Amino acid sequence: MNTMQTMNTILAEVKRKKPVIECITNYVTIGDCANIILAAGASPIMAEDIREVKEIVAISGAVVLNIGTLQEQTVKAMRLAGEEANRLNIPVVLDPVGVGASNLRNVTAEMLLKHVQFSVIRGNLSEIKAIYGIQSGTKGVDAAEGETADAEAIEIVRGVAKRYGCTVAATGAQDIIASPERMAILENGHPMMADVTGTGCMCSAVVGAMCGGGVGDSFAEAALAVSMMSISGEMAEEFVRAQGAGIGTFREKLFDFMYGFDAELLEKRGKIREL
Amino acid sequence: MNTMQTMNTILAEVKRKKPVIECITNYVTIGDCANIILAAGASPIMAEDIREVKEIVAISGAVVLNIGTLQEQTVKAMRLAGEEANRLNIPVVLDPVGVGASNLRNVTAEMLLKHVQFSVIRGNLSEIKAIYGIQSGTKGVDAAEGETADAEAIEIVRGVAKRYGCTVAATGAQDIIASPERMAILENGHPMMADVTGTGCMCSAVVGAMCGGGVGDSFAEAALAVSMMSISGEMAEEFVRAQGAGIGTFREKLFDFMYGFDAELLEKRGKIREL
Amino acid sequence: MNTMQTMNTILAEVKRKKPVIECITNYVTIGDCANIILAAGASPIMAEDIREVKEIVAISGAVVLNIGTLQEQTVKAMRLAGEEANRLNIPVVLDPVGVGASNLRNVTAEMLLKHVQFSVIRGNLSEIKAIYGIQSGTKGVDAAEGETADAEAIEIVRGVAKRYGCTVAATGAQDIIASPERMAILENGHPMMADVTGTGCMCSAVVGAMCGGGVGDSFAEAALAVSMMSISGEMAEEFVRAQGAGIGTFREKLFDFMYGFDAELLEKRGKIREL
Repeated sequence: MNTMQTMNTILAEVKRKKPVIECITNYVTIGDCANIILAAGASPIMAEDIREVKEIVAISGAVVLNIGTLQEQTVKAMRLAGEEANRLNIPVVLDPVGVGASNLRNVTAEMLLKHVQFSVIRGNLSEIKAIYGIQSGTKGVDAAEGETADAEAIEIVRGVAKRYGCTVAATGAQDIIASPERMAILENGHPMMADVTGTGCMCSAVVGAMCGGGVGDSFAEAALAVSMMSISGEMAEEFVRAQGAGIGTFREKLFDFMYGFDAELLEKRGKIREL
Repeated sequence: MNTMQTMNTILAEVKRKKPVIECITNYVTIGDCANIILAAGASPIMAEDIREVKEIVAISGAVVLNIGTLQEQTVKAMRLAGEEANRLNIPVVLDPVGVGASNLRNVTAEMLLKHVQFSVIRGNLSEIKAIYGIQSGTKGVDAAEGETADAEAIEIVRGVAKRYGCTVAATGAQDIIASPERMAILENGHPMMADVTGTGCMCSAVVGAMCGGGVGDSFAEAALAVSMMSISGEMAEEFVRAQGAGIGTFREKLFDFMYGFDAELLEKRGKIREL
Repeated sequence: MNTMQTMNTILAEVKRKKPVIECITNYVTIGDCANIILAAGASPIMAEDIREVKEIVAISGAVVLNIGTLQEQTVKAMRLAGEEANRLNIPVVLDPVGVGASNLRNVTAEMLLKHVQFSVIRGNLSEIKAIYGIQSGTKGVDAAEGETADAEAIEIVRGVAKRYGCTVAATGAQDIIASPERMAILENGHPMMADVTGTGCMCSAVVGAMCGGGVGDSFAEAALAVSMMSISGEMAEEFVRAQGAGIGTFREKLFDFMYGFDAELLEKRGKIREL
């Protein structure tokens, strides 16, 4: 079965199961992540109290850990949730927001990567580079511009995928999706997505939603989720341009188009090039 | 004075007084709850530090406690706020988000119900069933589907109202409002409301806003607030359908229609059947 | 160079540098503050863990401290971030949300004002009065109505500016901007802005964004930021009125118009009267 067929199966399974997605995430975009998970067909829960995360993980189809606003307690909860998910064979997604911007974020990402086996790491290219250990200008927590999939970038993403034995989705002007064995370049999306906070966090949340379908192909699940976000972003920008509107409208339409996303749209607009 | 007349009085009093509504609530929908309280004509404050909650409660017209994202400190603040509100005869609303999904949520809800006399408990039917002590498939924290007001459901809601001596609003496909003496079935609303996170939290926040009017009829206040949310949801869905839009637009219009809600609209669209 | 010319320089510098703005802020409006900072041309980061704030401040163009939802840990982080910013000559903005409503908020604002040299204090007139030490009806955390720039108000704002040696922006029906030497009355804006939560927090965030441009004229930076918010609010209200919409649409358009704000719009619509 090819990747596109697998993606259609994933979409169908998510709609059918409406899996619970447990997110331990930052407070800046927590509401947007819950809404985008619902728009993508899954059911969010944002439990972060260490006393309940194991129980919540047990009823979840996937777990998303996002380090955007760190606090001592939530980091403990993230590790516990990740370890429990591993024990129960529930996929875990890492969004290493702002890694490279502070030692705390570096240490936290390393700690989680040491103790938890992730299915997918989703970050901006600059964040994936920071994980690889290369100096890269992480600027704020929003996507640095002009992150294109040059040969060096591709090698770095592949390297991280091999080191941690998981799928890595490095999003930017072009998106690079790599597993230890597979590689794809995605070319949907629009720069306006970087003008709204949380499009990266939301992308990771959608990766979690797709992993929650239980198909078990994290490469296809990540590529699908990134395509869903990028295509929704393209369509939102087209709407905004036609209306002469701005990012308030863009943000609203992003949810509208994610809500209406289906296999036909993926077929028609998806720009997924497997290498 | 009949319930409909009382509702009009409540609406008028809230607009006149613009009461402060103190919410100790979850971080997923905290901004939406503040905005819906403003849209409903009241004034939100979200103070959760144990060192200030008593002072804030003292200037409030009602208090809303929502257990959606539990943390040790905020649970202490919830109990303190609830006890102080009881001491000052300020109505308190409980939203037992996700009760049934974890032991921590069950224990927390029970603790609050033991120490605080609530005026209204507002939850999904599955959450009200969990409080009643019946196994019910709480799934994520969003409304499970097809929760209709069958005879068993009605008995459960009435039972919880009698046990805790308060009004209980169990929202779902149909909404059941019960006090120890009264009972109503509400039939406004649209399934799309379950596709946006926080419509339940927002409903509880509006219950708080209506209780803040100080009329003191918690049954009418809860029935009014649920009707306000459901009618706004119906109108938002009609707008979205006409536009071929999605949940981003739905969410925005929900605030628009709540902002424009008035007695005339309640008269025209309200489907409130007292049993 | 007059104030208007300086404002144009500030706008240009922010767009050119896209400075990182570190915000330690409340959870109610944290996402809105991040989005409005992006819309204003800067890059937000909301780091609040005491273990990373110094590093984050070091890469920031400005720091915004907002006491809307206090917690013990974040207050410590606010002081540390403010002191580090002072050490590095990075401008710091204070939003004393709800000061006057509780002793904790008063004590926290006083502590921060004692240990941190602020460039700008941005609050509702009632909050600025509370800082001045005058009893004033702080109601919830949203703007009390009818706050006009009478002679007494002007003296209070000037007094706070002199006492703390910084710019003070007191926003209301009219906005008063004062530095120890300068004074301006701004008359843009619309009452509907008070019907959306966080317009005050967002205004302070935009003040931070403008300070991040590095021009170093905090009076002009504050007056510009307040004008940007008020003019965006006016335009959003005009849009909403034309559509017969409400505050959901208003909120969305606020971001649209901030995103499209430029020097020409300031020239055309700005109502800035220097005294």
